[in-house]
Amino acid sequence: MRFTAFFSEPAARAVRRSGLCKFAVLVAVSGGGVVAYADASSNHTEFSQGTPKKKLVVLGTGWAGTSFLKNLDTSLYDVRVVSPRNYFAFTPLLPSVTCGTVEPRSIVEPIRSITQKKTGPVGFFEAECYKIDPANKKVLCRSSIGTNLDGNGEFELDYDYLVVALGAKSNTFNTPGVTEHCHFLKEIEDAQRIRRSVMDCFEKASLPSLSEEERKKNLHFIVVGGGPTGVEFSAALHDFIKEDLSKLYPDIKDLVKISLIEAADRLLTMFDKRITEFAEEKFKKDGIDVKMHYKVVKVSDKAITMTNTAAGEVNVPYGMVVWSTGIGTRPIMLDLMKEIGQGDRRVLATDEWLRVLGCENVYALGDCATITQRKVMEDICAIFKVAGKGNSGTLTVKEIKDVLDDIIERYPQVALYMKTKQMKDFSDLLKDSEGDSFKESVELDVERFKKALAQVDSKVKILPATAQVAAQEGEYLARCFNKMKKCEEKPEGPPRIRGTGRHRFKPFRYRHFGQFAPLGGGQTAAQLPYDWISIGHSTQWLWYSVYASKQVSWRTRFLVISDWMRKVVFGRDSSCI
Amino acid sequence: MRFTAFFSEPAARAVRRSGLCKFAVLVAVSGGGVVAYADASSNHTEFSQGTPKKKLVVLGTGWAGTSFLKNLDTSLYDVRVVSPRNYFAFTPLLPSVTCGTVEPRSIVEPIRSITQKKTGPVGFFEAECYKIDPANKKVLCRSSIGTNLDGNGEFELDYDYLVVALGAKSNTFNTPGVTEHCHFLKEIEDAQRIRRSVMDCFEKASLPSLSEEERKKNLHFIVVGGGPTGVEFSAALHDFIKEDLSKLYPDIKDLVKISLIEAADRLLTMFDKRITEFAEEKFKKDGIDVKMHYKVVKVSDKAITMTNTAAGEVNVPYGMVVWSTGIGTRPIMLDLMKEIGQGDRRVLATDEWLRVLGCENVYALGDCATITQRKVMEDICAIFKVAGKGNSGTLTVKEIKDVLDDIIERYPQVALYMKTKQMKDFSDLLKDSEGDSFKESVELDVERFKKALAQVDSKVKILPATAQVAAQEGEYLARCFNKMKKCEEKPEGPPRIRGTGRHRFKPFRYRHFGQFAPLGGGQTAAQLPYDWISIGHSTQWLWYSVYASKQVSWRTRFLVISDWMRKVVFGRDSSCI
Repeated sequence: MRFTAFFSEPAARAVRRSGLCKFAVLVAVSGGGVVAYADASSNHTEFSQGTPKKKLVVLGTGWAGTSFLKNLDTSLYDVRVVSPRNYFAFTPLLPSVTCGTVEPRSIVEPIRSITQKKTGPVGFFEAECYKIDPANKKVLCRSSIGTNLDGNGEFELDYDYLVVALGAKSNTFNTPGVTEHCHFLKEIEDAQRIRRSVMDCFEKASLPSLSEEERKKNLHFIVVGGGPTGVEFSAALHDFIKEDLSKLYPDIKDLVKISLIEAADRLLTMFDKRITEFAEEKFKKDGIDVKMHYKVVKVSDKAITMTNTAAGEVNVPYGMVVWSTGIGTRPIMLDLMKEIGQGDRRVLATDEWLRVLGCENVYALGDCATITQRKVMEDICAIFKVAGKGNSGTLTVKEIKDVLDDIIERYPQVALYMKTKQMKDFSDLLKDSEGDSFKESVELDVERFKKALAQVDSKVKILPATAQVAAQEGEYLARCFNKMKKCEEKPEGPPRIRGTGRHRFKPFRYRHFGQFAPLGGGQTAAQLPYDWISIGHSTQWLWYSVYASKQVSWRTRFLVISDWMRKVVFGRDSSCI
Repeated sequence: MRFTAFFSEPAARAVRRSGLCKFAVLVAVSGGGVVAYADASSNHTEFSQGTPKKKLVVLGTGWAGTSFLKNLDTSLYDVRVVSPRNYFAFTPLLPSVTCGTVEPRSIVEPIRSITQKKTGPVGFFEAECYKIDPANKKVLCRSSIGTNLDGNGEFELDYDYLVVALGAKSNTFNTPGVTEHCHFLKEIEDAQRIRRSVMDCFEKASLPSLSEEERKKNLHFIVVGGGPTGVEFSAALHDFIKEDLSKLYPDIKDLVKISLIEAADRLLTMFDKRITEFAEEKFKKDGIDVKMHYKVVKVSDKAITMTNTAAGEVNVPYGMVVWSTGIGTRPIMLDLMKEIGQGDRRVLATDEWLRVLGCENVYALGDCATITQRKVMEDICAIFKVAGKGNSGTLTVKEIKDVLDDIIERYPQVALYMKTKQMKDFSDLLKDSEGDSFKESVELDVERFKKALAQVDSKVKILPATAQVAAQEGEYLARCFNKMKKCEEKPEGPPRIRGTGRHRFKPFRYRHFGQFAPLGGGQTAAQLPYDWISIGHSTQWLWYSVYASKQVSWRTRFLVISDWMRKVVFGRDSSCI
């Protein structure tokens, strides 16, 4: 999951009034997450007493799973959660953990603390799900604890509904040696290992009777991947070394080198060019060696091998490598995909209601799945029919306008296309597609209808693998589950195009609030909606404000803020623990 | 090292005015450790420039080593420190770390931060010393970091003076299975592992489809050793479960059991009986199962085997075992002892100036050594001679009184004996030894002199292996090193008994300020000098106050205090990280 911000609307509005950025800190801190520690007298009784509730199994406690659990009315279902981690981690702060700006415990909250506040009991099992069996409606799990149980720690859970939020794994692109010799940055343990490893490199380089070359090698930190994670980590490491370690290791501080390797031609490809340029300029000033157009082909225990069209193959010795080149699909998801006929896909596909295509009552959200937005062109004849209420042949413009909102709800790319082209209604679409030959008319046939909508599918977008998306999906799905009964009787979704009646729920719609890229030295870049760009120290304050307000509990909020203050007063700790 | 408090004198006085205990918190917090963050412009140049300084190598960064470094004038020597840990850990708070009351980072301070504030440069090497070679005046070391160096990470250091402060290891008494299956509680890593293990036990016991017996087994926490560490850990674990975990694991909370195994007939044997009784009574009320007269003979992966004269051999299944039965000698120390002719001893012996007996310019302090106090009876004839200034035959009482202070300085057991017997001067000693036959006389011969002092050696005491002793030894030795040159010209010690002139320095004298035993539930027992006993909630405040004031830096002081506050407001974290 990439690290993305998820502005609350008031925060986003505050940004636009940019002068007030610093004030936003207090506002957001006191305003966010009020729900978190609201006391709800928890009712922990055994499951399935009285009327038999439907069994709802949730796999995963990351952004998607936790957001789902937080918003779910747990009294309606017999809820069981399976995850190898008994806590939720605020992953966007992981780069801060690698250098001790924030402590690992400050960004985790036990899932039991979160579910304890719910109205109904929630069963949590610290285990790894290793097989999903949709045919028999069950999941197979294995305790992830080095166990001295008499059994082997395996168990099965039946479900009526399954919510899969298992996340993704780091993508090594099968580069040899990466798994063995590189650090990733996805879990709390990864961040802890990196922190320890940075200190080890400094301690190793301080040993007596080493050659200067060997000291240099140990102090060469390589980051592979110029995405938000790689960039933020490089910046955090640079600050750590400059602000803290250079004072404690004065004899070797000048031997330190940070290299950032990127295969593309620029950093932060998903950001605006202005941010990219600012970042590259800043890194140049900071002495971070940014290498574009380099592809890593091998990592051994002592050196990393890269290729470049100009330089050919180069071998660079290193002290530590952090690998952050994006995400890949977990083996359990690949197995599931094979089983349900999605074997030829790279990521599990769901429909716009987060239902896994090809099996029933299984939902998937977060990084482990993508939403496959239905194309208008696939359904064009059916849409034409629905709009004409069955009267085949032709359609009046008024008839189309009557159902346009429904169409837009089902196919948001139509609205996106119209917005991009600054169109107001269907006539504009028609005018655009027919150009000079356009004539105002009351009726149109299926061919003209098709032609008018021919381009809209170009606006179908795959959602990014960010915390923001996962959190919104979790919240959306929880709301669907909460009103499942009500909506079965009184559906609230758009009319079915290839069927009768309406969909039970409105489809999931993502709202993008913006994305941060912290660049070190107290400076952050932010890309907000409407192409609004903000870079600098005030954006860093906005970053503090948003990240503090988005904490999952008052405990973590307090801890994160006091960690930031502690860093300012005392610096970061360099003990090898 | 056992966990002992080390009252500063003002704090100890505050205790005696017991009503003011709570005030002491603030006083001690603001009064202690002012030196810690005093800015000294550090001067990090290469070693051994200009006039050749004597090479001083320090092994270890525990209480003794760090206290030595903090008090040493590092500009006088070419100082190099070798330790596998690049930080100092405030070990008395380790039991608090096991349950998350205090975070590990809050009680560690990097050695480099401490030495950076010194006037002279200090070289630190994160490595383990694996051999001391006093014949060739060098130590052999090995980098403790999983190394990808080209060499094997080994190096040698020459020394002119060597300070050995390597500490001790946990003593398993060679009980089979202890090393493999039990947790110790000596290092930061131990405390972290215990914390993780407690949570693992709770998560394991929460898995579905386990028998009640199996859940009970996983929730059986066994502590072996009823000393201060074992007692404090049991109390801390009980509080953690009662105050935090029972809310998050309501279904299994009644299956938890804590057992405390002790081979002797009471807990806290080094404490006053009143404290022991209070502790045993409190544990009984808390439901901690205290088993006296049980000796552990074996630990397997699933059960612990104990023997008891009444019950015979019993096998008890467990979830986790913590082993804290005292300390043993490290292999490197045993090797050194063999080499210098101390092979038949259990612990390395030093004289009263902390010089290792049998080799030159090697000092040992802290848990790795004990001071061998010379007996009066061994030197009685020499003392007689010195007192008579060489005139053999008889000695006047006045002559004895003239040198009594020197004798007491060299043989503190004399003063201790006299104090115990409430004697004022030598005449009382004489009177006591001769009973009814005593006659006031001016002169006495060697036999009467010997008789008078015959009992004093019964008061020779071995110092306990506590942080308090180690810290005082470190401070003492640093002061000796600081005035080495001055004292060579103008010795300040007592006259040499078996030689001429005076000793360079006064011998080390330990001052006991008291000892704490936290018993959980906000209650602590303290045994202070003059048999003063304090138990209860106010003593807990004294404990907070002393432990906060004794922190090695303002950073750790701030962190420890904010951890305590965090615990009160938010409880302890139960995430498995």
